[in-house]
Amino acid sequence: MSLLILKIGGSVITEKDAVSCARKDEIDRISQEIASFKVNSQDAIILVHGAGSFGHPQAMKWVTGGFDAQGVYLTHSSVKLLNSMMLDSLNTAGIRALPVHPLSSCLLENGKIVEFNLGQIKLMLERGVVPVLHGDVVMDRAKGAAVLSGDRIVPYLASVMNASKIGAGSNVDGVLDDTGAVIKKITPVSFIDIKKHIQGSGSADVTGGMLGKVSEFLELAKSGTSSRIFNASRKGMVSKFLYGEDVGTLIADK
Amino acid sequence: MSLLILKIGGSVITEKDAVSCARKDEIDRISQEIASFKVNSQDAIILVHGAGSFGHPQAMKWVTGGFDAQGVYLTHSSVKLLNSMMLDSLNTAGIRALPVHPLSSCLLENGKIVEFNLGQIKLMLERGVVPVLHGDVVMDRAKGAAVLSGDRIVPYLASVMNASKIGAGSNVDGVLDDTGAVIKKITPVSFIDIKKHIQGSGSADVTGGMLGKVSEFLELAKSGTSSRIFNASRKGMVSKFLYGEDVGTLIADK
Repeated sequence: MSLLILKIGGSVITEKDAVSCARKDEIDRISQEIASFKVNSQDAIILVHGAGSFGHPQAMKWVTGGFDAQGVYLTHSSVKLLNSMMLDSLNTAGIRALPVHPLSSCLLENGKIVEFNLGQIKLMLERGVVPVLHGDVVMDRAKGAAVLSGDRIVPYLASVMNASKIGAGSNVDGVLDDTGAVIKKITPVSFIDIKKHIQGSGSADVTGGMLGKVSEFLELAKSGTSSRIFNASRKGMVSKFLYGEDVGTLIADK
Repeated sequence: MSLLILKIGGSVITEKDAVSCARKDEIDRISQEIASFKVNSQDAIILVHGAGSFGHPQAMKWVTGGFDAQGVYLTHSSVKLLNSMMLDSLNTAGIRALPVHPLSSCLLENGKIVEFNLGQIKLMLERGVVPVLHGDVVMDRAKGAAVLSGDRIVPYLASVMNASKIGAGSNVDGVLDDTGAVIKKITPVSFIDIKKHIQGSGSADVTGGMLGKVSEFLELAKSGTSSRIFNASRKGMVSKFLYGEDVGTLIADK
């Protein structure tokens, strides 16, 4: 049984410049693309979604300025609302999916994951369930609390759970160069030259941009987990990624 | 810093014979009783609430008949709704409180807790936050999933976190004998004779009755954690328990 980790960016499933505004149609479309693959496949899937406009505005206001329990509560509640919409949609599409909330299951130290409860995630996968995690605000030994983005959860889980493939679906067509063209493939060797030509992801948020994402995926590529960064806002792309087609940018060891 | 664990039964905060029906006034009253104590106290508090009519009807229907991911999802979602009402009320009352969901943080084997992520709970307590847990449906190595009642969470946390006191607030005045009178105190020695005179808790549910609760608390009493079983439906009783007054039934080593 191989393990796929699919990340769906907050920009895909929410109006990122609004506050707590979901794109219900996009959520349902993605659920259906996952469902149509999952029904024919024995592969295990972990889904991680971003918080987008459910969480980022709250986190910017409350969590980044020092520990504030009420800010943590409001941010976490907002993100869970989006997660519930995702779960409702997945279950309606026929996917057996269960939520795993990072505030309840992991612990940071200066933003770095130092504890992550994986027992229930492994058991869900064994039972054919898709665990659904999300960007969240999480307790931090040094800071009290800090933002844990979906983009940080994905490489962590991929590494500790030996994922075979990662798909990072955002609202851009892949890793773009400075002319706006998709870079089809990045390896640790090609990265040295390509690095300075990589475009930013467009809109700044509290969770870091495209370059950080590529760097983390390159580390994973060295231990055998390949990744694809692709446009999950385009219809059919999630499905194509899951079926192993050549979408977006491939990040691989060689 | 001593640790108090307060359990509020589902029968107190929900209409237990209905489906997903909360007693908002009772939730607010209890939040205010906790807030008025917490503002003057350095004691750490963990709050555990039952699921009552948010969860039990769902669990009876779906979870007890074998593993059903959608049943787990529906039960968990329902319980989280009640938990959100509790958290909103606590935060409105001025208590810094954060949720910890058992499905995300622990794992069972044949109904027994075998993993429980405590790092985030300890950190919340250090920061003056009240972690709020609840009865939930949880992944189980043997059964797929099983109900984890608040009554099971309380003795587990009390034991591993060396709680000084437990308060179990239900809708009865304490442990009752067969004449309906409150038994003021139970010790391991007195239990031998009292046991056969203890009345059931009244309404059967999937989580076991009064006798099981007393037995678990007696085990804890032997290692120094005293407990009180009292009526949290009566105004002021939660406050009295927190302030150390003689309410309900005391379960102690001697």
